[in-house]
Amino acid sequence: MDGAERPFPTVEIVATGDELRLGEVVDTNSAFAARSLAAGGVEVSRVTVVGDSRSEIACAIREARARADVVLVTGGLGPTLGDLTREALADALGVEVETRPEALGEIERWLRRPLSELDRRQALAPRGAEMIPNRWGSAPGLKVRAGARTVYALPGVPHEMRGMFETSVLGEILSMRRSSSIATCHLVTHGLPESQVVARLSHLRTGDVALGTRARAGTITVRFLARAATREEAERRADSAADSAAKLLGEFVAGRGDRDMAELVAEELLSRGLRVAVAESCTGGLVAARLVGVSGISRVLVEAIVAYSNESKTNRLGVSAGLIAEKGAVSAEVARAMAEGARVRAGADIAVAVTGVAGPQGGTEAKPVGLVYLATASALGTEAAEHRFRGERDAIRERAAEEALWSLLREARRFASRPAGTRSA
Amino acid sequence: MDGAERPFPTVEIVATGDELRLGEVVDTNSAFAARSLAAGGVEVSRVTVVGDSRSEIACAIREARARADVVLVTGGLGPTLGDLTREALADALGVEVETRPEALGEIERWLRRPLSELDRRQALAPRGAEMIPNRWGSAPGLKVRAGARTVYALPGVPHEMRGMFETSVLGEILSMRRSSSIATCHLVTHGLPESQVVARLSHLRTGDVALGTRARAGTITVRFLARAATREEAERRADSAADSAAKLLGEFVAGRGDRDMAELVAEELLSRGLRVAVAESCTGGLVAARLVGVSGISRVLVEAIVAYSNESKTNRLGVSAGLIAEKGAVSAEVARAMAEGARVRAGADIAVAVTGVAGPQGGTEAKPVGLVYLATASALGTEAAEHRFRGERDAIRERAAEEALWSLLREARRFASRPAGTRSA
Repeated sequence: MDGAERPFPTVEIVATGDELRLGEVVDTNSAFAARSLAAGGVEVSRVTVVGDSRSEIACAIREARARADVVLVTGGLGPTLGDLTREALADALGVEVETRPEALGEIERWLRRPLSELDRRQALAPRGAEMIPNRWGSAPGLKVRAGARTVYALPGVPHEMRGMFETSVLGEILSMRRSSSIATCHLVTHGLPESQVVARLSHLRTGDVALGTRARAGTITVRFLARAATREEAERRADSAADSAAKLLGEFVAGRGDRDMAELVAEELLSRGLRVAVAESCTGGLVAARLVGVSGISRVLVEAIVAYSNESKTNRLGVSAGLIAEKGAVSAEVARAMAEGARVRAGADIAVAVTGVAGPQGGTEAKPVGLVYLATASALGTEAAEHRFRGERDAIRERAAEEALWSLLREARRFASRPAGTRSA
Repeated sequence: MDGAERPFPTVEIVATGDELRLGEVVDTNSAFAARSLAAGGVEVSRVTVVGDSRSEIACAIREARARADVVLVTGGLGPTLGDLTREALADALGVEVETRPEALGEIERWLRRPLSELDRRQALAPRGAEMIPNRWGSAPGLKVRAGARTVYALPGVPHEMRGMFETSVLGEILSMRRSSSIATCHLVTHGLPESQVVARLSHLRTGDVALGTRARAGTITVRFLARAATREEAERRADSAADSAAKLLGEFVAGRGDRDMAELVAEELLSRGLRVAVAESCTGGLVAARLVGVSGISRVLVEAIVAYSNESKTNRLGVSAGLIAEKGAVSAEVARAMAEGARVRAGADIAVAVTGVAGPQGGTEAKPVGLVYLATASALGTEAAEHRFRGERDAIRERAAEEALWSLLREARRFASRPAGTRSA
């Protein structure tokens, strides 16, 4: 089908780099671009990852151009001899590369030094290509239009790629839409396994709204994708399906929108002005780092104490050494004492505490790897819960941090529903 | 070329899932598999990401099988109607799917409940396929051999995929090697931009050792890949090239091996028994979380204080309120006071502190977004440094955390080279 007949351009991504192919680096650029496009109703249909090989890159570009209206290539625009996207793109288009004098000037201004032979490679471009300016690094991007097809090439360094994509590429691709009759919305849930979320929603009458789920660290996000004659109608249908789903999922709904648990918690805390403190052991700063990932959190986050040693639990959080000796650092009692100590010492409205065995060492029969205690403390009292997570060290820590954020969200809502007088000073 | 003639099997990955294609989830599974294989000298040549479409998955499997000896498919083995890898694999092989009674029993044992119609989908397999047991979840994997080609399919949930890959797939693929005449080694550097690392190494005579670099958060990792008649000879060549490179890079070498900065720091601290404390502001727990990512760190990490508010800097780290008022929370003086306070209060040998403006709000002309102060404190004294990082909030925080770990590594080495008497109690 020709691009002109479709309401939306089809997009493929070709991500290049031996570091991606060999798994040394995770390809976050493709997810970033795909997510930005999807928010505008344009879907990436395929991502192809190939190494730093001129022939492999050229081959992948040729194949992608045969299927898609737009091909986005990332990586391989740096100065080294392993950066071969310029030449590969020229091969795929059947043209030569040439040096662009104006680009040489730009590169020299960025590097603030005379250009070496390698530096000058960044000014190469396939004949007929436009250069895309780079305000975040030395390597310019490339854009080639041939017929109804467009190829963009951007550097692989994530912040350069992101800046250039948002500034120079995203808007152009979205402007190729011939209709905006698509809408997505999301519902974030926690506490039910994915299969039970799906089962609960299986009786939902959503008409032509497509449902998709994804699971991460115990949080299940449901996506509602609607197509209709107009954008407004599509949005109405997607929203309406999400509303019905939210009723079926009840207390397990964490929030609306394609947002992670930290964003949902931060929104709740910020909108209600609830000051928060965090006490972490096995998660080692992950809960705090997730919260600090949200801009503006400084208005409510007082502090986080990563009390990794028993002495720190005692000195910083006031957990009695006797309690630790009696119950063990990984216990509901110590989690409660950590949360209470964190709240009082920070003068916070709410505190959350995590202690557990992340493994791979340190597990016993009574306290196996994956055993995690979570506690929240507020003027409403202190609550603790025991969890047993499966998986490896990183998975257990990530899962525990997610659960801590979910506890915090529920406590913030519970707290917020009480009269203001119950808040601490 | 036929698989039997090559010394190493060629491997391609087909990663499936709308959540990957739409960028809602980053494909970490492929990187994990590729990295595990590369450690055994087997390289992944291409990764293809497609959505939850039976025809797209079947097409990607067919294409990959035409090029590679081994195809690893991930995702699409769950219970929902969007999980279509079983059917797509059957399509690609030209066979039917059938229900495996023995798998039904396994699934029921895992779920501990009577199976629903959807649950039973997980016992489907293409005719001729073997089932791969899953000790981490309900969905079994699949393995199909046809001629010299093998296709493996594993669930997309990361910890299930990883467990099954390591237990049932990796060893089989590595056993297909007909030679082990490949070796890689890595050198981790920090403090020089990638182009300068490359320039310094451009005069290195490495013979047939291939060099590759990758950059992340200011750390440049150089990979040396050698091929030779024997594994030992390949290892000798790669090591020798890395030795020569290390001499050329001098003080900028952080360590050997494909390890991240946190692992290198942890090794240094653990091997010397240096107790460490962390004080963070803008990084918000990232430095601690990186360290806690290393198993065994509890022997040396006392605590981390995420002093996100000024009151926390004062109460927890003893930074005088007057100093904060005079110099600002983001200043070399406050960074020094944070490091000193963290060290003394934790009774640690070394402390590192970070304070900065991560943005996007909060920047001023005098203290713009990206301005970060780092300090280390030990019995050797306190040192502070100013950095100006470019990029967005996440990039600045990640960059600052990396730099803090690098400071800690250098301080640990400097400290360790002094007589033991200078250590604190």
